[in-house]
Amino acid sequence: MKDINTHIILVTCSDDVGIIANLSTVMADNGLNIIVMREFVEEESKRFFARLEVAGELNVPKLASELEKVLPPDSDININPKAKKDIVVLATKEHHCLGDLLIKNHFGDINAHIKCVIANHDTLAPLVQRFGIPFVYISHEDKTKQAFEEEILEVISHYSPDYLVLSKFMRILSKDFVAHFENKIINIHHSFLPAFIGANPYKKAYERGVKMIGATAHIVSNDLDEGPIITQETTMVNHTFSKQDMVLAGREIEKKVLSSALKMVFEDRVFVSGNKTIILE
Amino acid sequence: MKDINTHIILVTCSDDVGIIANLSTVMADNGLNIIVMREFVEEESKRFFARLEVAGELNVPKLASELEKVLPPDSDININPKAKKDIVVLATKEHHCLGDLLIKNHFGDINAHIKCVIANHDTLAPLVQRFGIPFVYISHEDKTKQAFEEEILEVISHYSPDYLVLSKFMRILSKDFVAHFENKIINIHHSFLPAFIGANPYKKAYERGVKMIGATAHIVSNDLDEGPIITQETTMVNHTFSKQDMVLAGREIEKKVLSSALKMVFEDRVFVSGNKTIILE
Amino acid sequence: MKDINTHIILVTCSDDVGIIANLSTVMADNGLNIIVMREFVEEESKRFFARLEVAGELNVPKLASELEKVLPPDSDININPKAKKDIVVLATKEHHCLGDLLIKNHFGDINAHIKCVIANHDTLAPLVQRFGIPFVYISHEDKTKQAFEEEILEVISHYSPDYLVLSKFMRILSKDFVAHFENKIINIHHSFLPAFIGANPYKKAYERGVKMIGATAHIVSNDLDEGPIITQETTMVNHTFSKQDMVLAGREIEKKVLSSALKMVFEDRVFVSGNKTIILE
Amino acid sequence: MKDINTHIILVTCSDDVGIIANLSTVMADNGLNIIVMREFVEEESKRFFARLEVAGELNVPKLASELEKVLPPDSDININPKAKKDIVVLATKEHHCLGDLLIKNHFGDINAHIKCVIANHDTLAPLVQRFGIPFVYISHEDKTKQAFEEEILEVISHYSPDYLVLSKFMRILSKDFVAHFENKIINIHHSFLPAFIGANPYKKAYERGVKMIGATAHIVSNDLDEGPIITQETTMVNHTFSKQDMVLAGREIEKKVLSSALKMVFEDRVFVSGNKTIILE
Repeated sequence: MKDINTHIILVTCSDDVGIIANLSTVMADNGLNIIVMREFVEEESKRFFARLEVAGELNVPKLASELEKVLPPDSDININPKAKKDIVVLATKEHHCLGDLLIKNHFGDINAHIKCVIANHDTLAPLVQRFGIPFVYISHEDKTKQAFEEEILEVISHYSPDYLVLSKFMRILSKDFVAHFENKIINIHHSFLPAFIGANPYKKAYERGVKMIGATAHIVSNDLDEGPIITQETTMVNHTFSKQDMVLAGREIEKKVLSSALKMVFEDRVFVSGNKTIILE
Repeated sequence: MKDINTHIILVTCSDDVGIIANLSTVMADNGLNIIVMREFVEEESKRFFARLEVAGELNVPKLASELEKVLPPDSDININPKAKKDIVVLATKEHHCLGDLLIKNHFGDINAHIKCVIANHDTLAPLVQRFGIPFVYISHEDKTKQAFEEEILEVISHYSPDYLVLSKFMRILSKDFVAHFENKIINIHHSFLPAFIGANPYKKAYERGVKMIGATAHIVSNDLDEGPIITQETTMVNHTFSKQDMVLAGREIEKKVLSSALKMVFEDRVFVSGNKTIILE
Repeated sequence: MKDINTHIILVTCSDDVGIIANLSTVMADNGLNIIVMREFVEEESKRFFARLEVAGELNVPKLASELEKVLPPDSDININPKAKKDIVVLATKEHHCLGDLLIKNHFGDINAHIKCVIANHDTLAPLVQRFGIPFVYISHEDKTKQAFEEEILEVISHYSPDYLVLSKFMRILSKDFVAHFENKIINIHHSFLPAFIGANPYKKAYERGVKMIGATAHIVSNDLDEGPIITQETTMVNHTFSKQDMVLAGREIEKKVLSSALKMVFEDRVFVSGNKTIILE
Repeated sequence: MKDINTHIILVTCSDDVGIIANLSTVMADNGLNIIVMREFVEEESKRFFARLEVAGELNVPKLASELEKVLPPDSDININPKAKKDIVVLATKEHHCLGDLLIKNHFGDINAHIKCVIANHDTLAPLVQRFGIPFVYISHEDKTKQAFEEEILEVISHYSPDYLVLSKFMRILSKDFVAHFENKIINIHHSFLPAFIGANPYKKAYERGVKMIGATAHIVSNDLDEGPIITQETTMVNHTFSKQDMVLAGREIEKKVLSSALKMVFEDRVFVSGNKTIILE
């Protein structure tokens, strides 16, 4: 939990000797006390990632300028990112993840505001409207994927969201669509990726006779179910579970995994490097 | 834990109305009190599976004959299976699963006797010999797979084991070899199957950036890593884990999963149906 | 998941030789096919517990009469218990468990109907009313516990619920109140019982420096937090967790544990024996 | 896993503005590249804890002197702690934790050397001797606790161990004994502390009807089972578990928890603050 009087600072850059010293010296020089600093150097990419929580009076332009001076030229510096993210949720017919998000949104349990829910079926309209949130029904039928996605984009454009959340949205988004929101679309997949990629993971899990099922929250990239994984969880099943029992057991995991991933994303803890996430807790 | 004065009875047959009544009436007529009865009917195959623990004086031929009269003709009845299984362990170089089995075998913690350890490297010889168990080194080098397997079979033939345990044995066994021990070879695979089938699962897991790794104990069938799964477990990893860290974390899971699977197999709880296991705990 | 064409039969009685034979023979004689039978004999109490799912035409009085003939005289037989239980939920201010129950109730995810929510604060009224469920606010202030409980009882009496669910209800109920609903009140306690009995478990957990926190769903008995446990779960914490972080992490567990316990209770899988539960899954 | 060319530096001191800047600047000035830095400020005690892994040529006296200049006067600085700790293990009769440690010790899986095993029964002598490790049997019978402990201390004195590991040692150590090894004795307790403090936790767990059992590794302080917790784990049990089944299931957890705690301790990740641990992973 971020205290209201602290500020978050995010840094990504190529690694260098003395980078922590430089970073922390600038903080000290600006009268900022480092409450928490978490950093990581990825060996393959030689990239440095840091997330700081600092306390003190913040002069953003001065701090930014001083950081730029001491950090490598390829640095990506984000001082005081927006505390509450604006999000648009895409759904289809299933209510379990969406219901959980609506309750959490309603009581301020997540660092986000749900601005709108868009779904390709109207099943969930009454639930969403109970919480006073706009629900837009855009059917995917009788139109091209491009037309379908343009309608969605049009609705989204009214909200300029920081993130899109796919809360059991059962349509595959095109590369063009994904390109609009690079690393900003979070999906929940109902399997322990990379097991059971694609459609009907519970059916496949049932047929394989697995003894655990899982769920994976990941960032959407161009390749279906191949984007950077944020978090995963598993739960035990056994031979007495029908396909439908697996679906039901899976829902509880999906709900928990999506919620936990969003918490980390909205607290600015999730960095993307290639096809992996670095999570600075 | 099976009490010393109870007997185990295993039944597999096609399902039928009244089958539990017939089965339990025969027990009552023979003065056998049912301590625990676990049964399952598999919907697809319409097969009935049962495991009973009964108390009382056992007349095996009489009981078998009476059960045969009331159960379907395709019944497979196993009265009072061997309490301690004879096993042969196949290994390569890794000690973690084998070390755990040796300790458990030494103290009688598992319902089995390790008769011999065969390995395609001699690395583990000193460990095995410390426990007074025969160790046979059979290199796979400079010979055909067939010749290699024939040497193994020759050694195994001296022990007539009830089960073979592949304790991180890193060679793929041929169909012919597996056919000698139908549903009697237990393997530990170092991934959460069906994720990361085949070689180097930790490398693949590392490259995919997963947030959990796992292990799977399964019965070996003709298809690599595709046999009936007995049990699986997962553990959390994160971006700070190198490939080697994943290997180390995985070892603890592999050890636990193999040990837990063997416990169930050696207690006659694991039934095979097609490519699945039914585990009557 | 119970199929709509199957019937549940529950039996509790003193143990006897041949009891499973008698029970299953009556089923066969009545043309009822046993789909699933789960039974347990408790060694200390010498009590037999069984839950059957049977398929076929049900003649309840005939079946009951035939079962009574072959089972011990102390038998408690329940044929075809109510599929959907009527429940009244008691709450205080916290929304996480209640929100989850309201969503599940709304979509028919649990075998129950929430008839009414009673709370000793009015905080949750808007949430409950969004789902069209009666909300009754009964303050505990400026009155005796007896008066407070009588008001609650009066409201409950309109609904004749099968179960009361304490969804983070923060008042301790008197013995007299509990006596009205023997084994029919389900509570969620925010600790891994018997650790941290009583008030402020997260504060105590924080001060003790534990590395896991948990939640426990149990049946309410006369002794605070001492009733029969239905299910428990734990989650990892570490030194970076403030008290409030523990509360937040705990909520996810509490929600899951209560929901999972209620599923088992409403599916008639939970039997009580002394201070323990026997759960026939 | 610590790379052979990196050095570990541990710092504990009162918190201060600029402390990370000072610490990291000294590293940079000494040509040491910070590979990993983990730090934590404990709010209650206002203490700062840090663990660094640095790469570069190490001049210990120079570095120590420069760190002392910039850090608060109460600083506790540990540069390049011993990579492999010398340990003495105390046991009684149970082999599961000890067997696991012996295997790990034998293959160099832990950052430690077991110098000697001392036990108050001779049961485990053959196991320990198989691994070529001195086993000393010191009975607690027919002597005072003081005499018993003096004998143990005498044996320990030959080895000057960095840590004592209580691997299911079933005697309670006196305050005087513990005072010799402040924060240097690691114990495994067979329950999820603070549940079931003291003797016979599995019996108590069985009688309470819990649905999970656990194990806790902790540092031994003067108060029985009250010392700083390092790590804990739980596993599910149910009504079919006898006391003995709980013991068996618990052993797997105890083994894993002790091993995992020792890994962290021997990698110098565990700091003690009051009655809590801070674990810098």
